[in-house]
Amino acid sequence: MNPTITADASPPVFPFELVRNELEMIETAIQAQARSFEPGIEAYVSYVCKSSGKRIRPALALLTGGATGAVTDEHRKLGVILELVHIASLVHDDIMDGAELRRNLPTAAAKWGASLSVLLGDVLFAHALELASEYNDSAISRAIARASRDVCAGEILQTQRRYDLNLSVPEYLKIIEMKTAALFAAATHLAAVLNDCTPAVQEAMKNYGLRLGTAYQIYDDCLDLVGDESTAGKTLRTDLLKGKLTLPVLYLLEKATNHQKTKLNRMLLNGEPMDTTILAGIADYEGAVERAVTFAKDMLKDARKDLMVLGDSPQHHALIEITAYLDKLLDKCRAAA
Amino acid sequence: MNPTITADASPPVFPFELVRNELEMIETAIQAQARSFEPGIEAYVSYVCKSSGKRIRPALALLTGGATGAVTDEHRKLGVILELVHIASLVHDDIMDGAELRRNLPTAAAKWGASLSVLLGDVLFAHALELASEYNDSAISRAIARASRDVCAGEILQTQRRYDLNLSVPEYLKIIEMKTAALFAAATHLAAVLNDCTPAVQEAMKNYGLRLGTAYQIYDDCLDLVGDESTAGKTLRTDLLKGKLTLPVLYLLEKATNHQKTKLNRMLLNGEPMDTTILAGIADYEGAVERAVTFAKDMLKDARKDLMVLGDSPQHHALIEITAYLDKLLDKCRAAA
Repeated sequence: MNPTITADASPPVFPFELVRNELEMIETAIQAQARSFEPGIEAYVSYVCKSSGKRIRPALALLTGGATGAVTDEHRKLGVILELVHIASLVHDDIMDGAELRRNLPTAAAKWGASLSVLLGDVLFAHALELASEYNDSAISRAIARASRDVCAGEILQTQRRYDLNLSVPEYLKIIEMKTAALFAAATHLAAVLNDCTPAVQEAMKNYGLRLGTAYQIYDDCLDLVGDESTAGKTLRTDLLKGKLTLPVLYLLEKATNHQKTKLNRMLLNGEPMDTTILAGIADYEGAVERAVTFAKDMLKDARKDLMVLGDSPQHHALIEITAYLDKLLDKCRAAA
Repeated sequence: MNPTITADASPPVFPFELVRNELEMIETAIQAQARSFEPGIEAYVSYVCKSSGKRIRPALALLTGGATGAVTDEHRKLGVILELVHIASLVHDDIMDGAELRRNLPTAAAKWGASLSVLLGDVLFAHALELASEYNDSAISRAIARASRDVCAGEILQTQRRYDLNLSVPEYLKIIEMKTAALFAAATHLAAVLNDCTPAVQEAMKNYGLRLGTAYQIYDDCLDLVGDESTAGKTLRTDLLKGKLTLPVLYLLEKATNHQKTKLNRMLLNGEPMDTTILAGIADYEGAVERAVTFAKDMLKDARKDLMVLGDSPQHHALIEITAYLDKLLDKCRAAA
């Protein structure tokens, strides 16, 4: 099989049953955004919006809205905006990564080239921030712009630190907080702000989003190392090839002897393929994955604690369930290491 | 001389004397933005902000502010924001055009590659829109996001219509209105909005910006055909090579015989170099440049009429002077054809 071809399989299905109908409305609203563009541009926007993702950010906005009061049109709009920012960032990511497929469909970069994809990401992004400026409270649009800036800045820092064996764990955590957790946190935090929650609840929901987003990225990083392409539904083993040092690899380097480090260094710089078996032959590979999984699971435990400020509600339970679901995915990574 | 090397010469100096000091403050403020980024990113932002342009958009915001009341911090901020959006769009343009130099300095794309430049444009853009969300009136940030979206959408349409000999003059005008005039108009329109001007004045200043921006782009298009690199201070004769059909070329095609069209078509599709002498040998080249220049000069005449809603002031005169200056540059293009 062509290694760039994503296997046709079932990627993880998050427990979003409670907001399934609402998510469908958001799906329709996202598609409708395409029609607000010039006729020459509509088809491009529609294409990249259609290659439907898991819609985690909209689901978090809806569930937090329900858990902290009620879901309003403003929460739905928040979901649409954050998903558009996310889609824009994926369009640009795919240019940089030279990715040919995303969820079994050709990426915009593969279909229309890098130039058009740069601009396509830009208009999606500008459109999202135009929608954001419609909120009466400018603090909302400011926070959305800030989170978007963090996503891009996190990606820059990650690009900068590729192949950098001096990357520290705190630096790695800062990068994934910016590139992934910032948008998760914008969803949960701003959903609470829209419901005029107390500062304590707003803060707790922001922390929940940050922790969930961080744990999610660590899971994704572990999956890249130990996952099975046919069940993951995407191309794996690409991080190290691109020089991306993720948490399990940083832990591996931490425990490696100087001789092992030199060997890893050489393989990394030469872009030699490194899968489970090869890594396991070099250093304490299982121990490193185990440690990364434990780190992420601890983070999820804290995320569940953040939710304790909320009253009882089905949405509250659903937010707990998401952490439990991710917990299980992490367990699978540990078992596969 | 390497044709991609920009000659060290004096590019056009716009008559911005009246706001020279204010523009220096804006320059400082633009540089200061770099410091709001993470240490790893500051140097990149600082570099692209430093390769100082003409700062036309900030100058228009300041002059319109003065001509419609008084220049406030909000006008200065508008200038900073619009210039950041402009810089972000240039960073992305340079990736697409494969440009190596901009104002005699290596472009971000040439210095750090396309990937980093995509992200660098993104953070600049996100940062500009974050600043925009600080206005109390969300209509301001909405209009800025909208103009930014127009810039990118205009570039997409232009990219789409490269090598398309069916591009019509109205379609071309729509594209340059979006990609260039929209930000000019945001400067003049929003400067009037910030001064709480009457709807008539706001509308007139918006039209002034749209017309000035359109005329400016037509001048730039003519310059690419007929200009002299050593005085223009930039690489010329690139539009046709990239398949960009500009107003003089569209006029040329309009008047060409079928035989001439076939010849032009072939040269365009094969990327054969086409300069003044070659084009003049094919069809009524001087007539086509003349017509484009006349179109732009008529537009400037209308822009001056837009200014008649304003009371007398040095800034009002400066806004007239800008159109007169562009008028002279257009005359030079006509003379060089």
